[in-house]
Amino acid sequence: MRLSANTPIGDVVLCDAVLAPRMKQCFSVTIPSALEKCRETGRIDAFKLDWKPGMPRQPHFFWDSDLAKVVEGMAYAMLEAPNPELEKKLTEVVDLIVSAQGPDGYLNTYFTVVEPENRWKSLYVYHELYCAGHLMEAAVAHYQATGKRNFLDCMCRYADYIGTVFGRGENLRRGCPGHEEIELALCRLADASGNPKYAQLAKYFIDERGTEPNVFVEEAKRNHKDLAWPLINHQADRPVRMLTEAAGHAVRALYLYSGMAEVAMRFEDAELLAACRRVYDNLTERRMFITGGVGSNPHGEEITKDYHLPNDYNYAESCASIALAFFSDRMFQATGDGRYLDTLENALFNGILAGIDLKGDRYFYANLLESHPAVLLTGPMQLERQEWFGCSCCPTSFARFLPQIGHYVWEESAEAVSLCIPSPSVWKGRFEVSGDYPAGGSVKITALSSCERTLKLRIPNWCGKFSLRRNGEACVAVPEKGIVSVPGPIAAGEVLELELDMPIRLLYADLHVTNDAGKVVVARGPVLYALESVDNNAPLSRLILDPRKPLEIVKMPEAIASDLPAIRATGYQEEVRADGVLYSEKAPAALPTELLFVPYALWGNRGVSEMTLFVRTLPRI
Amino acid sequence: MRLSANTPIGDVVLCDAVLAPRMKQCFSVTIPSALEKCRETGRIDAFKLDWKPGMPRQPHFFWDSDLAKVVEGMAYAMLEAPNPELEKKLTEVVDLIVSAQGPDGYLNTYFTVVEPENRWKSLYVYHELYCAGHLMEAAVAHYQATGKRNFLDCMCRYADYIGTVFGRGENLRRGCPGHEEIELALCRLADASGNPKYAQLAKYFIDERGTEPNVFVEEAKRNHKDLAWPLINHQADRPVRMLTEAAGHAVRALYLYSGMAEVAMRFEDAELLAACRRVYDNLTERRMFITGGVGSNPHGEEITKDYHLPNDYNYAESCASIALAFFSDRMFQATGDGRYLDTLENALFNGILAGIDLKGDRYFYANLLESHPAVLLTGPMQLERQEWFGCSCCPTSFARFLPQIGHYVWEESAEAVSLCIPSPSVWKGRFEVSGDYPAGGSVKITALSSCERTLKLRIPNWCGKFSLRRNGEACVAVPEKGIVSVPGPIAAGEVLELELDMPIRLLYADLHVTNDAGKVVVARGPVLYALESVDNNAPLSRLILDPRKPLEIVKMPEAIASDLPAIRATGYQEEVRADGVLYSEKAPAALPTELLFVPYALWGNRGVSEMTLFVRTLPRI
Repeated sequence: MRLSANTPIGDVVLCDAVLAPRMKQCFSVTIPSALEKCRETGRIDAFKLDWKPGMPRQPHFFWDSDLAKVVEGMAYAMLEAPNPELEKKLTEVVDLIVSAQGPDGYLNTYFTVVEPENRWKSLYVYHELYCAGHLMEAAVAHYQATGKRNFLDCMCRYADYIGTVFGRGENLRRGCPGHEEIELALCRLADASGNPKYAQLAKYFIDERGTEPNVFVEEAKRNHKDLAWPLINHQADRPVRMLTEAAGHAVRALYLYSGMAEVAMRFEDAELLAACRRVYDNLTERRMFITGGVGSNPHGEEITKDYHLPNDYNYAESCASIALAFFSDRMFQATGDGRYLDTLENALFNGILAGIDLKGDRYFYANLLESHPAVLLTGPMQLERQEWFGCSCCPTSFARFLPQIGHYVWEESAEAVSLCIPSPSVWKGRFEVSGDYPAGGSVKITALSSCERTLKLRIPNWCGKFSLRRNGEACVAVPEKGIVSVPGPIAAGEVLELELDMPIRLLYADLHVTNDAGKVVVARGPVLYALESVDNNAPLSRLILDPRKPLEIVKMPEAIASDLPAIRATGYQEEVRADGVLYSEKAPAALPTELLFVPYALWGNRGVSEMTLFVRTLPRI
Repeated sequence: MRLSANTPIGDVVLCDAVLAPRMKQCFSVTIPSALEKCRETGRIDAFKLDWKPGMPRQPHFFWDSDLAKVVEGMAYAMLEAPNPELEKKLTEVVDLIVSAQGPDGYLNTYFTVVEPENRWKSLYVYHELYCAGHLMEAAVAHYQATGKRNFLDCMCRYADYIGTVFGRGENLRRGCPGHEEIELALCRLADASGNPKYAQLAKYFIDERGTEPNVFVEEAKRNHKDLAWPLINHQADRPVRMLTEAAGHAVRALYLYSGMAEVAMRFEDAELLAACRRVYDNLTERRMFITGGVGSNPHGEEITKDYHLPNDYNYAESCASIALAFFSDRMFQATGDGRYLDTLENALFNGILAGIDLKGDRYFYANLLESHPAVLLTGPMQLERQEWFGCSCCPTSFARFLPQIGHYVWEESAEAVSLCIPSPSVWKGRFEVSGDYPAGGSVKITALSSCERTLKLRIPNWCGKFSLRRNGEACVAVPEKGIVSVPGPIAAGEVLELELDMPIRLLYADLHVTNDAGKVVVARGPVLYALESVDNNAPLSRLILDPRKPLEIVKMPEAIASDLPAIRATGYQEEVRADGVLYSEKAPAALPTELLFVPYALWGNRGVSEMTLFVRTLPRI
């Protein structure tokens, strides 16, 4: 049931102007700075297990996951380019992590030194299985990058131990992760170790979730506590096969859905895949921000209701957009439908990249679509990207996600190879993609070796017109589910030229999204554009885009280091009253003006600025 | 320094079509139903002081205030019309309350039976002095209505006791109410009892607030707890004389400011009054909803930042608008400036009346300016008016506020009498006001007896044009600070005809209120108008008002029992997409349509409905 799979990390080398620099910077800045933060804050020393009550830097119950994610990124960096200094650091940290494993296989710093009496007692509230999952993903990456088995074996022992605790068989207890993640990780561990029982354990956690009697309700009773959050916040209000809507804590939800899709493919579980489709459809048709952001309510960090997508007070956590990429990618692998790649690409170029600054070491945790420094409600974290957070999942998510981008660009199966994102890149020994995507839509694909299989080219949903030439000759290409198939064999040296029309587009939200009514988003290719007050007169709510006037591509402001263009539009600027009257009969006069848009993902790179993605426009009367 | 004072409650009898029916209904429905709720929930029985741990209906620390407010309303009902049955009930409840007083004068059910060891220990968190204040106001009303001194004397003893606990003298401890209210109450107690020392105690609480060392910080230290809220939420971050902005928990803030204005007048304290002016200006010029609602953030129920006035996710508690009326009224009394009455009138006809349904026994706690049942974030309390709340301050605020409206209509001083709100009414033996205000702007004032003093007539700020005739003869009337003065003496039988031009107006918010940009509010006289989906096609965000087309007065929909008119406007209705695509290039076509507006205060009286006060409009290009 898996129609394609990711190429191994490191096989596809990016050489475009948008993604490649971010990945390089991830290796040179993001990962080293995150590792340093882990060191400073005690996240590394925690694995020495020598913390005692009263000492500073008490380990926190999610710390293990942070270091694990940085280690995962470090391993990918090794895959990209051997680096003895990095390898030394990696070995040190990995050896320390491995040394923290108990004789029974358990490995969790918090529950070893802070609350040893409470192991597995509060799955709902704490992140025990979540941390285990991230450690497993790190171990898989470490094994893939170095060939060393020590961390992988350590994690197999941990998974073996977990398998002796949780399940439905004799001497087992029912249980589920309070924060999902381990489902995906166990599947990866199964592949790396060659032991399919770990995928069985992933399937168990998925099947157990939300069944009656509810393990989390029982746990709360045992602990004499109320449930810290309603069951729906942790996707535990019903068996996951019965899900019809994307709901609850956004990162939890998307990790779960990714795990469900992965398990559905492995076990050819059509019922589970159907549930994935339902939540995916509900999410992308009614509950996702235009940026690929997910999570409308800061309280509970949760997905809320259909069409509740507030721009200036939301969550849209960077980790949630990254998890949406994981989920979308697996849905493409399961179905071959290009629409899932559209979501992945959209999240990548907008919601995800907005989460990290152009220098590579400042992050948004939550990503607003409209930011008003003057009337800020949500706190400085949304106003300016920060170096680190007490709960620092987002920075460490970048450390492990950015190095993986290449393996979303090309995917393959026994029958076909798929160019999912047409960014300039080299799939070592297989294909080369050149051009200036996403600054432009000209994509040239050269076969570096012969390929017997079908070559599948995604035609993005934003592209209304395209043409394809094979060795200079026009092809009749009719996309099916967003994919054009070029039949193999393709000989070494063959050239495919894909020309994606990339006009400036204006996007309108469904009118049920009440706060977007009368507004428009400027887009070009996969890139969404926003207004910043550093380029335009604040408050930005005074500006009106005239959709009848042409928009044009212009040079990016110099202070933004990017090869992407900026966009200039014509419109009106309403006059701000000077009378100090809050509500008055004086209608503001609207005078002609120009509006300068920059890519949303690049906002906030020139100091604190007001920003809006949705811009007022004129109705089509 | 007091330029005028309220007329005694009961002296002015309303006979208009908007306020009078609400007041009558308050006596016949609101007060009896609130009393019954107090009985059902245990708020009355709590005063028997026989609750023991393990028993149901454990008294809550704010319960005393709820019953006190209902008792206050019952007393006003007695003033309006003698009623032996009501008097019997009132006597019963008052006797029970008085019986709960301890030998030292202390009277608080919660801290007598639930936490007797914690009396006065957590002023910041609990509502001990707040409950005392409401009991005092009830006692004053009871004394005024019945002439009986038992409750008043009981409260004097309580205040005497409080005066032996708190203060700066020997054997006294410094302290302040965590929830303000007692400041105003002590002033009223001083007047009713003839003992000015109670006003001195009010002044002490005001002067003490926010000084160093901060009493609340010290208290938290003593209790080994963190402050439950930042000091600014409880207006305790600085001495109140240094306030420059309206901030923190909205109801607390407005009770404090009312108390400050009252104390400023009594003690001729110009510095304190200047602080009142500053917070008032900041509030009404930057932080108040157009309805007279206050409180932008549900978290902390607080006033936030300049221009942060979200329509669909706010608080705007009914109690806060009622407290704004208290504050505005006292600011008028202190300054004679009509602008304060504009705020009072606006809050009264919009933010306050919206909080209670047309049947008189359902309430909003928080008042949204835009309600979307489909995407509701804030919970059912904002969707439909409710019978009662766990924290039921709003219902009981209506029980005591509605009966007082008459004494805001006419005010007087040694030099002048002031018609503050020109609603049809009879000031017994003095003046009669007739007309159809606020349905229309024709106001006829007849002197029922001779009046030596100046007659001051407020010209509302929404009125751009007016005329005044005295005994049929046109007067030259130039308003000063929103007030026209008609020199006395005025003989019995003299007639003044005030004609207030009352066109339909469109109100625009300052563009810094980002979510109101491109939108408009329809108003006529003091009444704001809203769209409801029961009259218009949802989502209401698809509707656009054309400001170039005339708006007209039409008949109110039959299901709304009101003599006020509805308003019809011309505009456009954007087509809602049927393609299920959340974000698309398809600009919605806008087709001509009509929009029907009903008074904002009357929304939600025909079942659950989408509602918006701010409506999209066309820019003035």
